Amino acid sequence: MSIFKSLVTLLGNNRVIKGQDANLFLIDWRKRFFGNTIAVVFPKSTIEISEIVKLCIHYKISIVPQGGNTSLCGGSIPDSYGQSIVISTKFLNNIRNINLQDDVLIVEAGCILKNIQDYANKHNRFLPISLASEGTCTIGGNLSTNAGGTQVFRYGNVRELALGLEVVTAEGLILNNLKSLRKDNSGYSLKDLYIGSEGTLGIITAASLKLYHKPLIICTGLVYVNSIEDAINLLSYSKSKFGSNLITFEIMSKYSIELSINFINEKNIIINDQINWVILIEIHNYEEKVSTLNLLEKVLILGLEKNIIIDAIVAKNSEQQSLFWKIRESIPLAEAKLGKGIKHDISLPISSISEFLKFTNQQLISFFKDINFVIFGHLGDGNLHYNIFRSQNDISEDFFLSLQSEIYNIVHNNVYKFNGSICAEHGVGQLKVDEISKYKSFLEIELMKKIKIALDPHNIMNPGKVISLN
Amino acid sequence: MSIFKSLVTLLGNNRVIKGQDANLFLIDWRKRFFGNTIAVVFPKSTIEISEIVKLCIHYKISIVPQGGNTSLCGGSIPDSYGQSIVISTKFLNNIRNINLQDDVLIVEAGCILKNIQDYANKHNRFLPISLASEGTCTIGGNLSTNAGGTQVFRYGNVRELALGLEVVTAEGLILNNLKSLRKDNSGYSLKDLYIGSEGTLGIITAASLKLYHKPLIICTGLVYVNSIEDAINLLSYSKSKFGSNLITFEIMSKYSIELSINFINEKNIIINDQINWVILIEIHNYEEKVSTLNLLEKVLILGLEKNIIIDAIVAKNSEQQSLFWKIRESIPLAEAKLGKGIKHDISLPISSISEFLKFTNQQLISFFKDINFVIFGHLGDGNLHYNIFRSQNDISEDFFLSLQSEIYNIVHNNVYKFNGSICAEHGVGQLKVDEISKYKSFLEIELMKKIKIALDPHNIMNPGKVISLN
Repeated sequence: MSIFKSLVTLLGNNRVIKGQDANLFLIDWRKRFFGNTIAVVFPKSTIEISEIVKLCIHYKISIVPQGGNTSLCGGSIPDSYGQSIVISTKFLNNIRNINLQDDVLIVEAGCILKNIQDYANKHNRFLPISLASEGTCTIGGNLSTNAGGTQVFRYGNVRELALGLEVVTAEGLILNNLKSLRKDNSGYSLKDLYIGSEGTLGIITAASLKLYHKPLIICTGLVYVNSIEDAINLLSYSKSKFGSNLITFEIMSKYSIELSINFINEKNIIINDQINWVILIEIHNYEEKVSTLNLLEKVLILGLEKNIIIDAIVAKNSEQQSLFWKIRESIPLAEAKLGKGIKHDISLPISSISEFLKFTNQQLISFFKDINFVIFGHLGDGNLHYNIFRSQNDISEDFFLSLQSEIYNIVHNNVYKFNGSICAEHGVGQLKVDEISKYKSFLEIELMKKIKIALDPHNIMNPGKVISLN
Repeated sequence: MSIFKSLVTLLGNNRVIKGQDANLFLIDWRKRFFGNTIAVVFPKSTIEISEIVKLCIHYKISIVPQGGNTSLCGGSIPDSYGQSIVISTKFLNNIRNINLQDDVLIVEAGCILKNIQDYANKHNRFLPISLASEGTCTIGGNLSTNAGGTQVFRYGNVRELALGLEVVTAEGLILNNLKSLRKDNSGYSLKDLYIGSEGTLGIITAASLKLYHKPLIICTGLVYVNSIEDAINLLSYSKSKFGSNLITFEIMSKYSIELSINFINEKNIIINDQINWVILIEIHNYEEKVSTLNLLEKVLILGLEKNIIIDAIVAKNSEQQSLFWKIRESIPLAEAKLGKGIKHDISLPISSISEFLKFTNQQLISFFKDINFVIFGHLGDGNLHYNIFRSQNDISEDFFLSLQSEIYNIVHNNVYKFNGSICAEHGVGQLKVDEISKYKSFLEIELMKKIKIALDPHNIMNPGKVISLN
């Protein structure tokens, strides 16, 4: 029997697709990666996934796990040879349990992040994972890439919110570690190995996640500053004034916020000439509204007096709050109007950001002249989305995109020089496998290979992603 | 040449000791484990450690890393065969760097935790790792055991505070990953594998640690409750009222606080008949003192009205604050007056704690009659120190200690039944290697073995700890 027939026998006709029907699952949403496959399969249970993995071992077929297919690095798209299958977790989407005394939610990998947020919300709790793609991405994808987002500053990356995992190993066995424990030091942290390994060591099928009580008050402000140095001073100052209540510290360059404002046709936010950067700041509080609002205003007034900010607006109601967030989150859509870009998802020591930007911007301008920089991201985490677009139509998009490796070289060399990471929150996928091998030490790559060989002895899990054994 | 001579050649006479001189390093502080060794060595640099590991590979000698020798599980004591060496990190104790914009501190493994806290403090920052043994334990030990302590509720275990590591691998190579980044998803999280592996995969030689701005205000209260259910309700209620400002939620049974109060001869704290448990609660704030104090008092008054607490005292000054902490932290010393105990470092889903206690207490009493329970710990993390002492002198201490495996069986079986962990924050060491193999799945043990074999191919790192390959 062929693998295809075996899969149909296991799952039925409707949950094994190929040809035209499969296309949707073979292109990433940025339309940069196109793959082929023997079949896309839709298991409904962890046991079915375990059976599928065993079949693949038997037939020597490799496996590409896929959640919401929102990877920005081609992490869930198979290669073009068509010798692997795609396991979609789409139908593995039950919320298994919530416990409000433990503040723990147990969900299956295919649950869409937004649905989990809503579910927690209904129970007067909140799951502090928030991403632009939250309406489509799945928690399995979030875990396998150790996703970041806008609340990492206070709550950490997804890794820090996962108390336990259920995993189908690369040998098709089910590892059940869905604990609700805040402390467990009974051996190696296997959980932390599967998280962030992008499906190259096994398939995360469920997770137990930390929940938090919902804050009584959320205060949001937009703060205008002149320089990146001022933005960084404001960050330090905000940490000292808000402590654990400071949740979000996002930054947008003048050009990126202007793009977004035009895109959503917002006329009330005026970015004058002095302003070069805009900060979106958010603080949570569990006490009365007035004092928190006062606090945010007081701090910003002090910031004005100290001359580190130009101006600020504090949202007076939830509409304004939503508007501030809409401006921040529309940047990726707005920049898409500029055509395809060359994007970098980088993190840097916060103390190096100013120098990195000066240095890298200059270098890129001197090499490529007519380019636009769309720079925004999570300044509180030192994580910037540093995106480059052609600024005029003299060169074709194809030609511009052909500069990717040269532009990567400049940006990533500088990230390396400043001790940063070229994969901050989007992972490695297939896009950056070669890139990371340039910047990681030989030893680190060797250790990763040893782990890959140890845990995926048949070498079938998500080939060509994160690490190449060749 | 022998390994001993080679070590002397490398380090000089003064930094290689054996015989009588070495004894201090061959007994744990609970005096439960006694080891033998070829030599105890005191490298001063990471390079020296790398050289020592290479020598050990050459001579086929195994290595026991040791920090402050405060392990409660014999994690840093060699076995009795005397065929291994002890590497003490005592002299690898430089603070390498502090960066107040990054809020990152880089320290070597042998730095004593208290010294690091003080150093951060001098720079108006704070490192949220606080343990009873902080005056003696080293950060290397804290990292290798993924230590917990009294601030995990807000800040996480040590794992969550380490941004990067420098490690000498089991092959004697130096892995330098001392990053100051909040986000780095460029491959498998090797850091998280070395953290918590108790020196069985390599030797952590330095770490970059997250710092936080110091709070303006620390409010501390003692809260008296009647039942464990009330304590858990108060925890939930406190989470909803204090949010991220709730740092510590410790619990002490009536018997354990009485022991401590008598031990330190404190006469002003009166524990009346109604009281069965005492909570130590601490909140941080970055705003003005008065409002925070008011808040804590307001919440506790509401707790009184809602009938979940019997009474509470809020510390009015730093002396009272210190007293509250002294009471909590003197329990281990006070219980030592009862003789040697049989101790359990367990974590449970918070929602199961009440049932676990009822069930386990009853079972132990019915089997062993005259025993005392000293129960205290970190209720906010579901982590209890559940310690058993003989209550009278009819039985000898030796006989009592010979009951350890029977008592372990009852307690650990119940922990397992309630989906808890038998190694919450003290690690596995040599004490619980057999115990964890009873409660972890075969698959989990197999995966751990695969990792051990992959990363420690000569099988020389801290033999007999965490996992046994035999």
